[in-house]
Amino acid sequence: MKLIRFGKTGQEKPGIELTDGTRLDVSTFGMDYNEDFFGNNGTERLSTWLREHQSDCPVIDKEIRLGPPLARPSKLVCVGLNYSKHAEEAGMAIPKEPVLFFKSTTAICGPYDEVIIPKNSTKTDWEVELAIVIGKKASYLEKSEALDHIAGYVLHNDISERAFQIEKEGQWCKGKGCDTFAPLGPFIATTDEIQDPNNLELWLDVNGERLQHSSTSDFIFNVQEVVSYISQYMTLLPGDVISTGTPFGVGLGFDPPRYLKPGDTMELGIEGLGYSKQTCVAYSK
Amino acid sequence: MKLIRFGKTGQEKPGIELTDGTRLDVSTFGMDYNEDFFGNNGTERLSTWLREHQSDCPVIDKEIRLGPPLARPSKLVCVGLNYSKHAEEAGMAIPKEPVLFFKSTTAICGPYDEVIIPKNSTKTDWEVELAIVIGKKASYLEKSEALDHIAGYVLHNDISERAFQIEKEGQWCKGKGCDTFAPLGPFIATTDEIQDPNNLELWLDVNGERLQHSSTSDFIFNVQEVVSYISQYMTLLPGDVISTGTPFGVGLGFDPPRYLKPGDTMELGIEGLGYSKQTCVAYSK
Repeated sequence: MKLIRFGKTGQEKPGIELTDGTRLDVSTFGMDYNEDFFGNNGTERLSTWLREHQSDCPVIDKEIRLGPPLARPSKLVCVGLNYSKHAEEAGMAIPKEPVLFFKSTTAICGPYDEVIIPKNSTKTDWEVELAIVIGKKASYLEKSEALDHIAGYVLHNDISERAFQIEKEGQWCKGKGCDTFAPLGPFIATTDEIQDPNNLELWLDVNGERLQHSSTSDFIFNVQEVVSYISQYMTLLPGDVISTGTPFGVGLGFDPPRYLKPGDTMELGIEGLGYSKQTCVAYSK
Repeated sequence: MKLIRFGKTGQEKPGIELTDGTRLDVSTFGMDYNEDFFGNNGTERLSTWLREHQSDCPVIDKEIRLGPPLARPSKLVCVGLNYSKHAEEAGMAIPKEPVLFFKSTTAICGPYDEVIIPKNSTKTDWEVELAIVIGKKASYLEKSEALDHIAGYVLHNDISERAFQIEKEGQWCKGKGCDTFAPLGPFIATTDEIQDPNNLELWLDVNGERLQHSSTSDFIFNVQEVVSYISQYMTLLPGDVISTGTPFGVGLGFDPPRYLKPGDTMELGIEGLGYSKQTCVAYSK
């Protein structure tokens, strides 16, 4: 099943996208895609409910905005430097265990929303990533238990301001959590749709030029390892999002580096997880 | 006004604490202390409501557990190394601008809850801190606007596992977000109760021995500077918590370092914000 949310920012309603691309409003099911939904077999229950009610669900006009395909999670945890060639381009060592950081959940936006280049930013950069949506409360998981705790997968652009992230004092979070820095979607594909999350092609174009193109088979730490590892340090809640890192080809890695400016577009996709597109705009109050 | 929440973990109800220490159940006011409450003049409206209804509010038995005094915030942002003498004991340079990191909000617990020493932890440490509760959505604030965006203040023990935080690869978040690593409370004091947040005595005892004792007048970056600074990098939502850093006297700073073991107690307090006490227990499944 493909879960979507649609409507104005902050007023999104839940929907699904069918195989032929038709989008249906499932708000009469009565639940948003949140901790309660994912933690209480929401995808199974919705699927059962649809058998009886799908024909009554209104079709969503294609012009209507898609929002992020889940409600605000308790956390958005990211893995850094999880592809060797990207660690190299970033001038950083290949990690011996996953590098973790948080993105502020206020950064989450829809898959076709504008990305705001923050005030005083000079180094806003792109990062196509496979993100995981947690399906069950997870603490101290073994690797073998990880897949059973996942509800689905979603396309994520882990936008990053490199000066804020790396040149400012301290931790990376300053350059990772600016508003609109986490476009998610177009949809969450439930786990039954993705045969092997560790073998998916992913790509990102800037202004039509392909700059990232790799496969999650190049992960240093795969989906199971990442989920199990994070759960040793914090409890993951249903609906939490884990982003698994970006491959080679970000702006930081070019010589000279290439960063985003107003009007630039990013188009990105992952096999089985659809496609998203964001246009950059300057910050204005 | 002093806002409290009481009852079993995950089922807390809102209350207030009167000047004489009496605690009243205000759940009939109809709002938990969450984003909606803080963002819609909740403290003012509750105060008005109490004029008429206080005498009907049930008294809360003193034996009943206090929970964290607010519902799960969208984020718990912390300032690191915000007291010079603490930066020194941690062997780190005095920062030229605030160092920021996130604690996972799943770490939040009540002021008298047990603190769980995580599996494989050898270096669990204490940190008494003044925390700020945001009262209005805040983005790109000037320092002069910061105080007007604060709803209140709360006592926080920023428990930290130093091996996870510093010796593991990458960012600090691994050692900051373990379950129970953020005891908050006993209460949120609304801003009218705290004359100057930048001049409050704070202290922490381990097993009855005073190990931290300082004043927020020793801040490198004061409350206004911290709130304004963070709002340059992410939007703060009503109910978000900002912890302002800890003074000298953490376990890491001793020679040899001193860390917490099961059975150890931490007692801490801040002038005007009450007192909390946590006993350490070993992790058990």
